[in-house]
Amino acid sequence: MTQKLSIGLIGAGRIGKVHAQSIANQVADAEIVRVADALPDAAAAIGRQYNIPFSDNYKDVLQDDGVKAILICSSTDTHAQMMIEAAAAGKHIFCEKPIDHDLSRIDAALSAVERAGVKLMVGFNRRFDLNFQKVKETISSGAIGEPHLLKITSRDPAPPPISYIKVSGGLFMDMTIHDFDMARFLFGEVEEVFATGGVLVDPAIGEAGDIDTAIITLKFANGAMGTIDNSRQAVYGYDQRVEAFGSEGMVDIKNNLPNTHAFYGADGVVSEKPLYFFLERYMDAYGREMAAFVDCVVHDKPSPVTGQDGRAPVVIAMAALKSLQENRPVKLIEIS
Amino acid sequence: MTQKLSIGLIGAGRIGKVHAQSIANQVADAEIVRVADALPDAAAAIGRQYNIPFSDNYKDVLQDDGVKAILICSSTDTHAQMMIEAAAAGKHIFCEKPIDHDLSRIDAALSAVERAGVKLMVGFNRRFDLNFQKVKETISSGAIGEPHLLKITSRDPAPPPISYIKVSGGLFMDMTIHDFDMARFLFGEVEEVFATGGVLVDPAIGEAGDIDTAIITLKFANGAMGTIDNSRQAVYGYDQRVEAFGSEGMVDIKNNLPNTHAFYGADGVVSEKPLYFFLERYMDAYGREMAAFVDCVVHDKPSPVTGQDGRAPVVIAMAALKSLQENRPVKLIEIS
Amino acid sequence: MTQKLSIGLIGAGRIGKVHAQSIANQVADAEIVRVADALPDAAAAIGRQYNIPFSDNYKDVLQDDGVKAILICSSTDTHAQMMIEAAAAGKHIFCEKPIDHDLSRIDAALSAVERAGVKLMVGFNRRFDLNFQKVKETISSGAIGEPHLLKITSRDPAPPPISYIKVSGGLFMDMTIHDFDMARFLFGEVEEVFATGGVLVDPAIGEAGDIDTAIITLKFANGAMGTIDNSRQAVYGYDQRVEAFGSEGMVDIKNNLPNTHAFYGADGVVSEKPLYFFLERYMDAYGREMAAFVDCVVHDKPSPVTGQDGRAPVVIAMAALKSLQENRPVKLIEIS
Amino acid sequence: MTQKLSIGLIGAGRIGKVHAQSIANQVADAEIVRVADALPDAAAAIGRQYNIPFSDNYKDVLQDDGVKAILICSSTDTHAQMMIEAAAAGKHIFCEKPIDHDLSRIDAALSAVERAGVKLMVGFNRRFDLNFQKVKETISSGAIGEPHLLKITSRDPAPPPISYIKVSGGLFMDMTIHDFDMARFLFGEVEEVFATGGVLVDPAIGEAGDIDTAIITLKFANGAMGTIDNSRQAVYGYDQRVEAFGSEGMVDIKNNLPNTHAFYGADGVVSEKPLYFFLERYMDAYGREMAAFVDCVVHDKPSPVTGQDGRAPVVIAMAALKSLQENRPVKLIEIS
Repeated sequence: MTQKLSIGLIGAGRIGKVHAQSIANQVADAEIVRVADALPDAAAAIGRQYNIPFSDNYKDVLQDDGVKAILICSSTDTHAQMMIEAAAAGKHIFCEKPIDHDLSRIDAALSAVERAGVKLMVGFNRRFDLNFQKVKETISSGAIGEPHLLKITSRDPAPPPISYIKVSGGLFMDMTIHDFDMARFLFGEVEEVFATGGVLVDPAIGEAGDIDTAIITLKFANGAMGTIDNSRQAVYGYDQRVEAFGSEGMVDIKNNLPNTHAFYGADGVVSEKPLYFFLERYMDAYGREMAAFVDCVVHDKPSPVTGQDGRAPVVIAMAALKSLQENRPVKLIEIS
Repeated sequence: MTQKLSIGLIGAGRIGKVHAQSIANQVADAEIVRVADALPDAAAAIGRQYNIPFSDNYKDVLQDDGVKAILICSSTDTHAQMMIEAAAAGKHIFCEKPIDHDLSRIDAALSAVERAGVKLMVGFNRRFDLNFQKVKETISSGAIGEPHLLKITSRDPAPPPISYIKVSGGLFMDMTIHDFDMARFLFGEVEEVFATGGVLVDPAIGEAGDIDTAIITLKFANGAMGTIDNSRQAVYGYDQRVEAFGSEGMVDIKNNLPNTHAFYGADGVVSEKPLYFFLERYMDAYGREMAAFVDCVVHDKPSPVTGQDGRAPVVIAMAALKSLQENRPVKLIEIS
Repeated sequence: MTQKLSIGLIGAGRIGKVHAQSIANQVADAEIVRVADALPDAAAAIGRQYNIPFSDNYKDVLQDDGVKAILICSSTDTHAQMMIEAAAAGKHIFCEKPIDHDLSRIDAALSAVERAGVKLMVGFNRRFDLNFQKVKETISSGAIGEPHLLKITSRDPAPPPISYIKVSGGLFMDMTIHDFDMARFLFGEVEEVFATGGVLVDPAIGEAGDIDTAIITLKFANGAMGTIDNSRQAVYGYDQRVEAFGSEGMVDIKNNLPNTHAFYGADGVVSEKPLYFFLERYMDAYGREMAAFVDCVVHDKPSPVTGQDGRAPVVIAMAALKSLQENRPVKLIEIS
Repeated sequence: MTQKLSIGLIGAGRIGKVHAQSIANQVADAEIVRVADALPDAAAAIGRQYNIPFSDNYKDVLQDDGVKAILICSSTDTHAQMMIEAAAAGKHIFCEKPIDHDLSRIDAALSAVERAGVKLMVGFNRRFDLNFQKVKETISSGAIGEPHLLKITSRDPAPPPISYIKVSGGLFMDMTIHDFDMARFLFGEVEEVFATGGVLVDPAIGEAGDIDTAIITLKFANGAMGTIDNSRQAVYGYDQRVEAFGSEGMVDIKNNLPNTHAFYGADGVVSEKPLYFFLERYMDAYGREMAAFVDCVVHDKPSPVTGQDGRAPVVIAMAALKSLQENRPVKLIEIS
């Protein structure tokens, strides 16, 4: 048997734990060998669970010669710097989305990665979900013909804490960025954005300078059009659907449900709400994502989600924000 | 334009009115020209609505030379005698199901029809429903391959009055007879029946000598098997489904709904119950049924539901009753 | 029995025939008593079918004292003038949508109606569809809480002839106008529109000066937002869906299907496409629409679709066209 | 942290591997510490994967003092003897279904377990599936009222090899036994069985003395009735559904699908077939099953699937076979 890929984990919060678990359970040819988190307790918890060294200093991970690849799961503002250092240390990199909120910092990080010749994969997990993959396959197979219309619905079950909202980069950068990535994944490059939004869920979100509800229109380079609708609060759960319409047909996906039951009673037919939480909804996708990262490193394959794939949705999010602020369509070319 | 087919209506109750309305609205080349009902008021109501002669004596309809075809919508115990007289009068006949509860009376009526050379069609309306027709087409096309298993679910929204139960001929003759017909329509001749049943809905039904819940197993001449489940009371409405399974696949149909809405709330997803009443569910089928009868008479086509199609389900119902009483499978050949 | 409402039909084309049939079959207290169409053969066909006087001059209908109400089913450019004349003649008016493509002509017609004190109902048939009505009821009941997001999908099975496109008033005035009406019906007044569109289905449509595919963003007076997507060609049939999302939940409707069957084979599960044609899809709604018109006239009730309901979607369509041409959001207040 | 439950695995075939994987990935407080399989290579494969001792002799597992509980995943004919020896050795026991094909051997094994006072759980995995559990919960909550009718559909995607058929104990003992267990799980004790069956899939199955298609009617002690339909080959995949109908409503479950997509094209709407294989379908249930076993041992809780739960479906299967052979309903009381 070939040696397992030794991975260092930076950031032992919610998503870091998810990736560690995926690797332990679903990725036979990799293992987490070291962990760091600025919060010593968080690092220790993971360290003890997997019986691996832990510290509160990410540089310990980068300086470990046994570490061949790293997972950057820390806060967004640390991503770019860590990428630069990891690249310098010759480590392959998996980085959570978004790379950064600032294009120049993103570009610096991508340059460092390119110079170092290490692998970089950005964590757009939905690309690895079986439903979205089926939509992608159906479009790629030509079954819908020429793409005409794309509809993405993306709604959270409940807003995050206001403290999080304040550092999130805003709805477009924090939440819609997944949808912007999905739009590119399915229909290709975006050229122009028109965004409208409002504070309909919680006034505190507005006081924090953000919106909680939005509709965004996209114009694609291939002439197709798209619409995304977002809400920070769908009381019936996590609502993640897509519909791709073209000259020869349409493909759509529905939400995943906790079970398939329906109750038929005198008052109507009652069935299950969608899975409530993104971790339930995408747990399997996270596993496939990690497997894809390990596969790309171990077998020297191209990254399935490149640095450019990480940068482009940030540009769209910036254009969307500008559109919202100026109430006009904004071309991506206007952004730097 | 060719002359319209002149039809006499015998029996101006619920089903008689349905057929009169279908002919007026959906069957361009026929018209009701005379009506009779033992209840003078019922006959008068229809007569005045369509501005046609009416009486309380069915012989008035049979003796009207202008009447070319009749609809027998009176009570079951009158069907056979009226068929014999109508045949003697040279009228084409549409007869509601069942023809009779007694085989010798059925046979006498069918002989009379045959001797007279008039058309006879028996009112198994579900054969004209678009859903059941699609199942039939799918099976006939060979899509499911060799038929293996047939599952028919047939449940009423609420039991009829006990007074009706007493004269109904029993669950099998009154309600399951539609399912026995459907089984033959879809999978061909039945050879053996095993029936089990009970009084689970209302003890008064048991006191009236009937059952209200049943499961019937069928063995078909072609080696396939079937199961029918019946209940006199499904609180969620009229439940009419079928599933046909074979070597190459399965075809099923679901219930028709009053609308396609779903409400997604914090407590689950709520959608509509099936249409509650058989008239709502099968109104369109009744129209197609009348059109088929008129077409067979006007264009001298074979009857789509023959006298034999009317007799056979009665035999199955009798076998089912015997099976229930003796708690053993009964071959149809045992029923003379 | 009270006397039936005597209705004159102006315009004996496709939609005129539909209304005549609805009245004959489904509206017991009204009857068509006279018909006119600029094409004598069209008028004659209806006239002979219902055995009523016919002519090629609509003034014959207006001058008939026996006519109490009229249906204006002629070409759009004739609507306003006929409304003015009908009002002057004291006839109640049902007018097909849109009233006109020109606001000043609409306003003149509405003024004439108001002065004459006759009833006016505009033919937005979808308001009478059981699915859309259920969405309306669900919203009105408060079940979805405060309205946040409205999504309307409206796609035709195939484009009309180019000759029709040229006189149609364009996609927004001809097709989206139904969706603009539905948006108002469900979420109330619209304040701002942003439209994007393209020629993706057939270049000949572009050569005729129109578009065939569009996404429109709406901002409502109540702060909610909406998105409409249109295509002139959905190869799978007539696609008419809506989804209304609010603080307490979501309600949606799906397409109506010709039957409920599904075939489960080795290659997947195949079920029916939506009903292909708007007449199949909305036949029942047309019947309810006529019944509602007759009810409002006979029982002196308020019109369920007023002149203002006819005017407002025209304003939205004009704003949408301006938005498309200028690639910017347009406030309705900009349209005088 | 408490010590993990040390489990010995006997039988390293397909199902043994599944349980080992479940324990490794999903059951934090247990671990496989030793494995045996009559096939040395099979034992070695698991042994090396988990870095644990392995041998070709199950007695090595039973004699290991460190082993506190065992999983019996070997062939059915070995179950009873191993249970007796394991009980004597004081090991808690998880045994795959069926315990045995012979009632006296089952009874001997159950007696040994009872005398030894060890835990016994029988592997009816479907009881741990989220769909079936929801049906159970719905019935237990009283939502369907009094149970009236139970419909279980259970069809395999393809028949096993004829060599397996010959030693399987027959369709009822091998395949329907799951459905008999499910019937008891949902509706309680069965009193009488009527079975009909045939060889419709593959004549070789008939030559091996078995049937491949069946319909079974059940009468429950509570007066309810049930029907089970089985096929060894559903070309569209593994078909596992249930429908429970009662005085106050119905609950059903559908199949699980690999994804939620649908493609809407000119030829219809195509969606996914059910998951093809039972391991895909029930992987999650197997994990929950192992967790339940470990929980019952570690926390000294009652077994969720007792020895009696293992015995009863065998009795029903024997009655079903007798019914098939004698073509008559058979009471369970006839089976000693």
